[in-house]
Formats: sequence, C-alpha cells, structure tokens
Amino acid sequence: MAKTNAGRFFEDYTVGETIRHAVPRTVGAGERALYHALYPARHALYSSDAFAQACGLPQSPLDDIAAFHVVFGKTVPDISLNALANLGYAEGRWRRPVYAGDTINSTSEVIGVKQNSNGKSGVVWVRTKGHNQHGEVVIDYVRWAMVRKRDTEAPAPETVIPDLKSALDVGDLVVPDGLTFSEYDFDLAGEPHRWGDYEVGETIDHVDGVTVEEAEHMMATRLWQNTAKVHFDVRSRPDGQRLIYGGHVISMARALSFNGLANAQMVVGLNGGAHANPCFAGDTIRAWSEVLDKAETGTPGVGALRLRLVATKGGAPFSLRADDGKYLPDVLLDLDYWALIPV
Amino acid sequence: MAKTNAGRFFEDYTVGETIRHAVPRTVGAGERALYHALYPARHALYSSDAFAQACGLPQSPLDDIAAFHVVFGKTVPDISLNALANLGYAEGRWRRPVYAGDTINSTSEVIGVKQNSNGKSGVVWVRTKGHNQHGEVVIDYVRWAMVRKRDTEAPAPETVIPDLKSALDVGDLVVPDGLTFSEYDFDLAGEPHRWGDYEVGETIDHVDGVTVEEAEHMMATRLWQNTAKVHFDVRSRPDGQRLIYGGHVISMARALSFNGLANAQMVVGLNGGAHANPCFAGDTIRAWSEVLDKAETGTPGVGALRLRLVATKGGAPFSLRADDGKYLPDVLLDLDYWALIPV
Amino acid sequence: MAKTNAGRFFEDYTVGETIRHAVPRTVGAGERALYHALYPARHALYSSDAFAQACGLPQSPLDDIAAFHVVFGKTVPDISLNALANLGYAEGRWRRPVYAGDTINSTSEVIGVKQNSNGKSGVVWVRTKGHNQHGEVVIDYVRWAMVRKRDTEAPAPETVIPDLKSALDVGDLVVPDGLTFSEYDFDLAGEPHRWGDYEVGETIDHVDGVTVEEAEHMMATRLWQNTAKVHFDVRSRPDGQRLIYGGHVISMARALSFNGLANAQMVVGLNGGAHANPCFAGDTIRAWSEVLDKAETGTPGVGALRLRLVATKGGAPFSLRADDGKYLPDVLLDLDYWALIPV
Repeated sequence: MAKTNAGRFFEDYTVGETIRHAVPRTVGAGERALYHALYPARHALYSSDAFAQACGLPQSPLDDIAAFHVVFGKTVPDISLNALANLGYAEGRWRRPVYAGDTINSTSEVIGVKQNSNGKSGVVWVRTKGHNQHGEVVIDYVRWAMVRKRDTEAPAPETVIPDLKSALDVGDLVVPDGLTFSEYDFDLAGEPHRWGDYEVGETIDHVDGVTVEEAEHMMATRLWQNTAKVHFDVRSRPDGQRLIYGGHVISMARALSFNGLANAQMVVGLNGGAHANPCFAGDTIRAWSEVLDKAETGTPGVGALRLRLVATKGGAPFSLRADDGKYLPDVLLDLDYWALIPV
Repeated sequence: MAKTNAGRFFEDYTVGETIRHAVPRTVGAGERALYHALYPARHALYSSDAFAQACGLPQSPLDDIAAFHVVFGKTVPDISLNALANLGYAEGRWRRPVYAGDTINSTSEVIGVKQNSNGKSGVVWVRTKGHNQHGEVVIDYVRWAMVRKRDTEAPAPETVIPDLKSALDVGDLVVPDGLTFSEYDFDLAGEPHRWGDYEVGETIDHVDGVTVEEAEHMMATRLWQNTAKVHFDVRSRPDGQRLIYGGHVISMARALSFNGLANAQMVVGLNGGAHANPCFAGDTIRAWSEVLDKAETGTPGVGALRLRLVATKGGAPFSLRADDGKYLPDVLLDLDYWALIPV
Repeated sequence: MAKTNAGRFFEDYTVGETIRHAVPRTVGAGERALYHALYPARHALYSSDAFAQACGLPQSPLDDIAAFHVVFGKTVPDISLNALANLGYAEGRWRRPVYAGDTINSTSEVIGVKQNSNGKSGVVWVRTKGHNQHGEVVIDYVRWAMVRKRDTEAPAPETVIPDLKSALDVGDLVVPDGLTFSEYDFDLAGEPHRWGDYEVGETIDHVDGVTVEEAEHMMATRLWQNTAKVHFDVRSRPDGQRLIYGGHVISMARALSFNGLANAQMVVGLNGGAHANPCFAGDTIRAWSEVLDKAETGTPGVGALRLRLVATKGGAPFSLRADDGKYLPDVLLDLDYWALIPV
C-alpha cells in the first residue's frame, strides 16, 4: 500500500460528501508577529490589544485574512493538489474572530461538480468551514477549482452547479459580538475617514509598492500549511519559477490598502475573487480599491463598505480589463469583499 | 478629498506642537522570536526569562533596540515620509523595559525647525516618546531629519535649534527598577569580562560578519511598521536598489557586538548616531566597538559603559574617517550609546 | 586581554571535564510559529494544542527537532567554532518535551579525544545535555567533531574512544509521561497508517521538494543561536558560498517526511546521522525514508519505528551510496532515528 497521498482527482468528489481536512493548528502570538513581518499590516484593531479592547473585543484577533489562510491551507491536500486552476470564491463570511490560543480545523462539503467538455478535468465546488476548538464556525466560504481526472475514461457525474450569490447582502454579514466604534480613536487608527466619507464608485490608489522575494512567500505559504508544490519546488513548473500563492497577494494588497482605508478594520465578507495573472518573486505589488457599495449594519456606529481590491504588478491605477473583457496582464488580483468601518 | 496620506512637508511642522502617531502595537513572544531569527542576538538577559529573573526583572524584556524600532517605526509616516535624510539622534533614554503583552504608542513634539538656505527643504527636530498601555514612557529620544518643502515659496519659519547634549551624563540614565547583577552568571552570559575589565579607549573587533538579504531586512522593517518606500519598492530609487533601514544595521551590529561585549546587557542611553553610508542586500556587515567612557550608576553592582559601535561593510577594523573628516565609504553606522554591565 | 572568543582547539579538551554553554533561551509561541514558517511541518501533535491534549500531553510541545537545535546551537561556540567537520551523532534521546515558556541550557561532557595521525587536528567526543529551568534533562546526545589544534606541537592526549551504541534499543527510549494514542484521530493527523502498516525494509518516497533560500536558512540558524561563521558570511569560505547548517536539512527532511509518515509523531531517539554533502541556497531538498526496525514500547498503543531519513538534492529516490561505499554526491543527509506512532 502506497503510504503517500496522490491527492483526489475529479472523479473522487461526490456531491453531498463532507471531507474532514487534516492537521489542526493552534495559532497565537507567533503567527501574529509573522503576519506583521511578512506584510505591511497596520490596521490598528489587529496590531494592538488595547485598541481592540476599546472596540469591545477581548483582545486583538488574528488578522482576518490570516485566519482565512489557516482555514484554506488545510483544504489544499484534499481539494487542490491536482487542480489546474483555482477559479473563484463566493459567500465567504467571517463569523467569529480567531484569538491567540484558538485551534482551527477545516471541513469541506462538496456542493457541485461539472465535468469539462474535454473529458480530462472538471470543476468542483466546495463549501469550506473553519472551526475553532469549541466547534464554532469561524469562517465559511465557497470556492471552486478545476481538477484533473485520474482516468479520462471515468464516466461524467451528474452536473450539479450550486446557486451562489454574486455578492453577500449586508444582512448576511456577522458583526462580532460586542463590537463598537463609539470610543474609536481615529488618530491612533491613522486616518480620519469614516463610512460617511466614502462614496460608491470612489477609487483609491494605495500608492505604496512592495517588491516580493522567494523567502517571504514561501515562509507565508508554509505558515498556513499550504503544501501545493508549485509554490516551493523550482522543478514543479516548466519555467522553473515558483508561483506565488494567491493568498500572499491578497494579504499584501489588503495590507497596502491601509493607506486610504485605515478604518476599514474588519473583513467580514468575501463576495468573490479572481487571481487574474500569476505572481513571481521580483514583482512589485501595488494596490487600488473601488467602493462598490455601502450599507449600515444593524449594529449602531458600525458601517459596511463593499470594496473591490485590485493588486497589480505594474500598469496604471484603476485599469483592470482590456477591451475584450480579459484582465490586463499586470493585474494580479481582483477581490470583492465587505469590511466594517466606523460610521 | 484624497484618502491617502502624502505625509507632512517642512512647512507643516510648528515648534511646540505634539503629533500623536498612528497604529499602536502589542508586542510579545512573536516579536522576540523574530528578533532572534533576524539578528544573531545572544545577550542572555533578552534570551532567557530565568536569566532576566536572576537579574531582578519579572521576565526577559523585548530587546532594547527592538523596542526602539517599534517606537521609531510609528513616527515614519508623520516625520520622515518626505525626508531627504535622517540626520541624527540625541538624548535617547530607555526608561522602562518593554515586556510581552505591552502595547506601545508614540508621540513626537516638534522642538526645532530650520529652513535650508536653498529654500527647498529644512531640518525638523522632534522629541519622540514611546508609551506603554499604562501611559508610562518607555523610551524617549530626539532625532532630526531633513524634510522637503511642499511649496518652495512658503515663508521660512523662525529658526529654532534645540540645545541638545552631545552625550548623556550617567545621571541621566535610568537603571530599571530592581535590576541587580549580584547573582549574575558569567558562564551563562557567555563571557567573563566585567565593567572593571574595560578601559576607556579600548577597541574591540567583533570578528563575525553577516551577509544580508532582501527578505530579511524587509521583514524586520515591516515588523516595526516602518513604511518608508525606499526599503520595499525597487521603483522608489533611481538605482533600483532597496535601501536597508538604518535600524536593521543598528540591530545587526549590536547583536554582533556580543562577541566581546556579552555582558553589556542593557542599552539605556543613545547619545548620537550617524548612518554614514547606505547598506544594500549582499553587503556583509561587521562591527567594532570603542569604549568612550565609563561610569558607576547609583545602583550597586551596575556599571555603565559608553560605547561607540561602528558597523562596516568592509575595510579594516577601527578605521572610521578619512583625512578630510568624512566617514570612509565602507562605514555604515557610527553609534554612541550607554549600556549597563556588571561591575 | 582579548575580549573576543577564539573558541577552543583540540588541545583544550580534557576527557571528563564538563562545559557549561552560554546563553540560556526561553522558547515559546514565536519559535513554534517560525518553525512552521521555515519548514513545511505538519505533524499534528506539534501543530495543535487540542490534538496534543487528546494525546495526553498538557499542550503542543516545541517540535522535537527544534528542541534539538536549541540545545545544539549553544554548543557551537565551545565545541565546533574551530571544527573542520561534524562527524557523527549517537545515543540521542528526547527525554522530556519542551513547552512554551521553558528555558533551555546546555552542558557538554568531554567523553573522548583522539589526535589525528597528521598531528594537526583531532576528534573530540562530547555528550551534550539540554536542561530546562527545573534542571530536568530534556535531550541528551553524543556528537563528535574533528577540531583543529592551536599548536601542532602540543603533545597528543591519551586516546579515549567512547563505547557508543550503533543504535538505541527500544528500552532506551523515553515515552513522555501520559502519552496515549487511544483517542488518536487519524483523519486530523492526515494519514491512516499505523505502526502495524509499516514493514521493516519498506521505503517511502516523500515526493515533495523545497528549493531553499539564503534568508531562510540564516533565519533558522540564528533562531537556534548557532554562530558558526560559514552559515552567514560569504567571506568565510573560499567559494563565497554560505554553507547551510546541517540541522536546517534535518528539519526540512523531517517535515517533508510527513507525506507517508504523518503518524510518526514524536522523535524520541537519534541513533546516528551523517551530513553526507554540503547544501547551498538554490538546492531543492527532497527526502525518502526506510523502515529499519520496529518495536513495541512498554506503553500500550504506542509503537516505535526506527527510520532512516535521507535528504537529497537530486538523484533517484532510494539511492544512497556508490559502489565504493561513499555517499552519492546528491545525498545531503543520512539520519537514523526512532519515532513513536500509534499501534
């Protein structure tokens, strides 16, 4: 019996089955510091226990995107080891902050399959949930990936395509228990801009850029226990380059967005996202944002912004797609998310 | 209204005003471990809780230089985003150790301004204070930088040049409450040399060298939330090189100085410092020290050494300036500080 | 008096003497997170407090190999600063897990010396013990190194060659107090393979590879306060390359061995090891294992596997030595250890 795991292939997924992913992880002060070393993260609620406590939380949580990476990383050996492409995200919700000492597990339910017309691969949709040590869901989201078939002769399964929201409604978002911005210190947070200062359609160039290195993206990707070979092994791609984990680009862009969105403190919803082009060491990542929507949550003083976050490795800010509708070659990421901000 | 921050220009500083800097930071076990990963730090008081407790402290504090970086990093967006040069430091005092769980804020009072004769820039002096979550000052220091004017037509302010000490007196130094070296274990600390073994004028070649990498200096600089573009973005300098944060060189040199100054445990005073030449990835940093002064503190058994710490990227040890008085091209750093050592 | 330490030479070692090594170190959440950032470590018992508690331990310990590095690093300034080669390991036992907050010291007893026939160097054997803050031994092991003489005219000491076991017996291994696999969750651990599923002589190709970077191996080596110049300074070797600490290769290979040995959770015995060839940045490390022996421990449900772990930078899996008995040039490491696994 072979002891090593070759991963699942398209024909190994059945709609309705739930996969328990391996390797629970306890996170803490080390992951938090490393997140600040790997990204220029400055959102105050994730930098300071005192600031988080003034916002009604017991302490500063792990950065929301870091928590996402922990949950996501566990799914890689079961979902995307034989993936040809990570196609999309939907209905992502941060349902409970992750604190130092929490142990995170992940499970995924297969919610859709569709074989490609070439018969060699298919699309798999899963709804992944991250749980803490109390069994509470901390994050859930849908993602879909194109996965190779082991045996191209295997019969096609019945096509099931899940019905997914193009964007979460504000009512779908979970405002953490106790969150309040009534004592919010805008000086300490770094910018004066409130929810009311942002207009739908407004765009913001986040100005700063970071040239990325092999050691950094590998350390980040390992930290989340993401084992995909293409990130680590120069022999795994024909061009000899290590592909940077798309989540590294998400974290970098989100951290850069501090400059202009310092008060968009908590990420609570992921509406969608595309890794438009590959990122490699030596690229200089920049970011810009667009305000897609605004809403009031039920919690007094807590507003929500729906934001498009675009990471680029060049090109002019605010350019996204060519005339044919395809992403421009310098666009790395097009992410659509909800964040909480003082009204 | 532009949401992003272009930083302050020379004409935006008024003598007497106090700037509250953004993004408080809680430090802990992660920052401590990263400091040991980024620098060959071996001073026992910062490596071992048990050793620190034997010295009368509740636990091992964050390295003094790391604490300085945390305080300093917060000032960058307000003080040095449009700086042409960081010119000097004076009257730096470590007034209270920083422990795991402490949350650090910074404020700066503008204490001097002097427009340059070219009318395009000026020098700004600030006294920066780092506070912990109890409002206690942990560090204060003066630094001055040359800052661009936004509008070269703006009128020159009245010149105010602060009166600064060329070096702190031993009476200015703060010995941490409870510090004692009566149970000091020289074997565990790594060297037998006491305060009495050092002579004014003595020089020490610290022997070891470290070749520095892009990933390391960027991780370090981000960890302190220092956002200066030149450290991260290959497009921000005409030569396409990322300038290494001067504080990275300070930390590297101080860590290397263990070899010969293992018992110069606590940095308590910063008399001055010059970043003599730029440092880039690939440089191999070495260090040498000179004993500038010696003094007894009021605390029994606790002596103070005033040390010159020089970091180089080549050249012979103990060479510093050319005949014209300028720093030799291989000199990176010339730092003047007070440290506490067992008598 | 020279303040810096030139290290010990062969004639400075006397059989029977005990050396107290410098710089105690408190380890914690930061070291644990960094270990996960530097290596693709996934063994569940070292990743999750909840998993470790289900195995009867109070919390997740520091990775056994990390604990070894902490103990080993302290010995470098006293044992191997003037070493020409690190020749071997024997009789290594992990006697007590290291937990967050523990402070580790090391001592070494000189147990053998043998001058080489060329009169320029000799072999020194030491038995090193790592202690925690309670004085309990956490690890002990024998290593031997070839050390230069300061003075080739110094007389040869009486040869003492210690009698060392070629491999520990299962009865020599220490099963941590309270360890139980009765509630072991194989899904969470990542693989279904039990002790009974492995056969003596079986070989496992761990499949994955990691291309290593300068920044990573230097951060790792510094984290263990290993100060050997060859790892950090491009000027210390004639070829201008930084030699990667052999322990970095051990950790990388052990982490890669998860894929096929996910349940070989705890490393408890080190029978021997050879750093067969040097490793440099840019090499892609792979690993394979061979089951050398199997035994039941006295603890119900806890089995032991004796494993050969081979790290390579190329070549075919399972090839080790050339016809002349020498290691093949692509072999980096040949390690022989005991691990505990659910029966």
